[in-house]
Amino acid sequence: MRGGKVPAKSSRLIVGLISGTSIDGIDAALVRISGPPTQPRVHLLAFETMPYPDWVRERLLAIAGGGSTTAEEIDQLDTLLGIAFGAAAVEVCRRGGIPPSRPFVIGSHGQTIHHRGRAAGNPRSLENGTYDRLTPWTLIRPCTLQIGEPAMIAERTGAPVVSDFRVADMAASGQGAPLVPMVDYLLLRHARKGTVALNIGGIANFTVIPANAAPEQVFGFDTGPGNMGIDGLVRHFTHGKKPYDAGGRWASRGKVLDPLLQKLLQDPFFAMRAPKSAGHEQFGQHFIQKHFLRVRRARPEDLLRTATEFTARSIAYALDRFVLSKVPIHRIIISGGGVHNRLLVARLGELLPKLRIHRSDDFGLDVDAKEAIAFAVLTDRTMHGLPGNLPSVTGARRSVVLGKISRPY
Amino acid sequence: MRGGKVPAKSSRLIVGLISGTSIDGIDAALVRISGPPTQPRVHLLAFETMPYPDWVRERLLAIAGGGSTTAEEIDQLDTLLGIAFGAAAVEVCRRGGIPPSRPFVIGSHGQTIHHRGRAAGNPRSLENGTYDRLTPWTLIRPCTLQIGEPAMIAERTGAPVVSDFRVADMAASGQGAPLVPMVDYLLLRHARKGTVALNIGGIANFTVIPANAAPEQVFGFDTGPGNMGIDGLVRHFTHGKKPYDAGGRWASRGKVLDPLLQKLLQDPFFAMRAPKSAGHEQFGQHFIQKHFLRVRRARPEDLLRTATEFTARSIAYALDRFVLSKVPIHRIIISGGGVHNRLLVARLGELLPKLRIHRSDDFGLDVDAKEAIAFAVLTDRTMHGLPGNLPSVTGARRSVVLGKISRPY
Repeated sequence: MRGGKVPAKSSRLIVGLISGTSIDGIDAALVRISGPPTQPRVHLLAFETMPYPDWVRERLLAIAGGGSTTAEEIDQLDTLLGIAFGAAAVEVCRRGGIPPSRPFVIGSHGQTIHHRGRAAGNPRSLENGTYDRLTPWTLIRPCTLQIGEPAMIAERTGAPVVSDFRVADMAASGQGAPLVPMVDYLLLRHARKGTVALNIGGIANFTVIPANAAPEQVFGFDTGPGNMGIDGLVRHFTHGKKPYDAGGRWASRGKVLDPLLQKLLQDPFFAMRAPKSAGHEQFGQHFIQKHFLRVRRARPEDLLRTATEFTARSIAYALDRFVLSKVPIHRIIISGGGVHNRLLVARLGELLPKLRIHRSDDFGLDVDAKEAIAFAVLTDRTMHGLPGNLPSVTGARRSVVLGKISRPY
Repeated sequence: MRGGKVPAKSSRLIVGLISGTSIDGIDAALVRISGPPTQPRVHLLAFETMPYPDWVRERLLAIAGGGSTTAEEIDQLDTLLGIAFGAAAVEVCRRGGIPPSRPFVIGSHGQTIHHRGRAAGNPRSLENGTYDRLTPWTLIRPCTLQIGEPAMIAERTGAPVVSDFRVADMAASGQGAPLVPMVDYLLLRHARKGTVALNIGGIANFTVIPANAAPEQVFGFDTGPGNMGIDGLVRHFTHGKKPYDAGGRWASRGKVLDPLLQKLLQDPFFAMRAPKSAGHEQFGQHFIQKHFLRVRRARPEDLLRTATEFTARSIAYALDRFVLSKVPIHRIIISGGGVHNRLLVARLGELLPKLRIHRSDDFGLDVDAKEAIAFAVLTDRTMHGLPGNLPSVTGARRSVVLGKISRPY
């Protein structure tokens, strides 16, 4: 078996791969991690985004949105995405000037096509491990499904691959998300400054790191929609031709539809206590259809402006209600595609006038590459036998080593 | 991290878990393997079968048969089956008198819900790893999908789990099946006797091991239906109340419908050269519906008799056409649920009068436990970094280490 020898403190090359809840395409980061895995220093060597072809994105969005499919289609997409993730790994290595078998390990988050953080129904009857008295109704259990077969990545690159990061946390009764807070804790904690790391992807989430925090003092959760609603509306009004509202310019020409906004903010998700996680199930195509596209005679720019305001308000609300009253916070460090939406960032600044807003670039974390970098760091932990979840964040019973290892040859 | 320390030549306890193409339920074998992993000696300590509840089997059969589903349902079943496989592992350890965290490792094949051994369409355009010029039509690629989340098994037992045995072989351009031939080679080869190991599960397959064979001389393939057609008809006629024709007694009361049998034997699968593998896609519900249930005014016992004859003939045909003319064979060693069908075994004896038919029990391999034992042996190989596929059997470019490793904690 090649690969997998664990460098203890010496520097190691790791590739992180992810496609997020926006289902835009694959982000690949090649990083050099140095120092002990408990105190990693991370240097980004190359970054690559590989957009999905339209038909792949459309099928993934439909399936993730609850649409009908078959085992064959999921299997085909699993394999196809494995090939594509492998190609993205090869490409980011080429950009970084190294052979694709050279990384110590590749960490591939895969593409989430279903995620349920909390149980519904009566899951207790499952816990004793027998299921003969179950009816389908009692079966609604927390579960998460990522596709993009890692054996294809290992075969293509010749490097070992860590995958399926979320299931071990869920097996330990966690919500399987968010996982980036461990990385925020490792890379962004500060001895005297309370920090919020906010990522605005398809879903928005943040990590709260009190000044001089111990791991168990860190918390975080999904605040609700990030770009998901905005992107969904843009795709709808452009018939799939545009994937997002560049710079927030389209929304800037509209005005907020206040009755719609007030109704949206009453969604029970926002008042729920952490841990909580969200996805297409809550804020995807079904949500857009139900709330936005039923408003009569609304102009697209007004709906987009409202969706943008909805994201900004739900983030600010989460901070106000669950964070600022409990922990002194000095700075917000933002990342993710939403950072490029100037309207959204400006509104966040207006809604949170007392906080300093930084971009994660200022801390060596490229705003677009941050999630891919994070999974490279989590992969480093797995290979060193270190836990990757924060039970205070996911609700797990204990910290666990994340992922499965696929070796080439 | 607990578990996973590799005992070199000393004996080790391993649990093998599988639910086969019959989709009856989970087989769990606790074995003690001794000797070097290249020449294992296997002793069965306990065996347990845990039938699926009817509604689980019905949904799995429908999904594996190509029926409509959602990502959520597949994710739920993946998690539920993970819990159930974990429970089966715990139960077989209890029967064997050991704590469930005690095995060196657990190997879980999972439940196959889709398997395509050969590409269709134009897969070549995928091989360069780009996919932007692909249309959905070109996407029909070999792929395989097993469910039963191993993180749930690791959490429940406290032992490391090897899973997803088939994908590495497929990534190396193999058909991902059959995998048992490696185990047949390890356990049943003979210096002077040519051996065919025949397993009659949902699908029937055999391994041909010439006398004194080297690994690359071994070959094998799926011969076609095993119990799949028989079981499907029994379930149909009993409205799901009976899962199989006990002892072949029902079929024994019928007569072969010769026009139907002749039509069935013309299926192009039988004339195809190896490597070839079959599943519900070829011989499942759709096949039964199309061929058996359209025969007017046929008596159930005649259809069952014909299905039983179809299995016997397709096995004998495969031996005649692809084996006996090339390799001297002295004995057939049979295993799998089909061994309990006395009519089927008697017909095989009549169709192959020159060969001695043994049950695998005579070689220390319980006929019902054989597949579960086989995956325990393959797991032993994976943990020792040894390949588990036979390229001469699966068509892979080379031998590969099979599976992904999930560790507890």
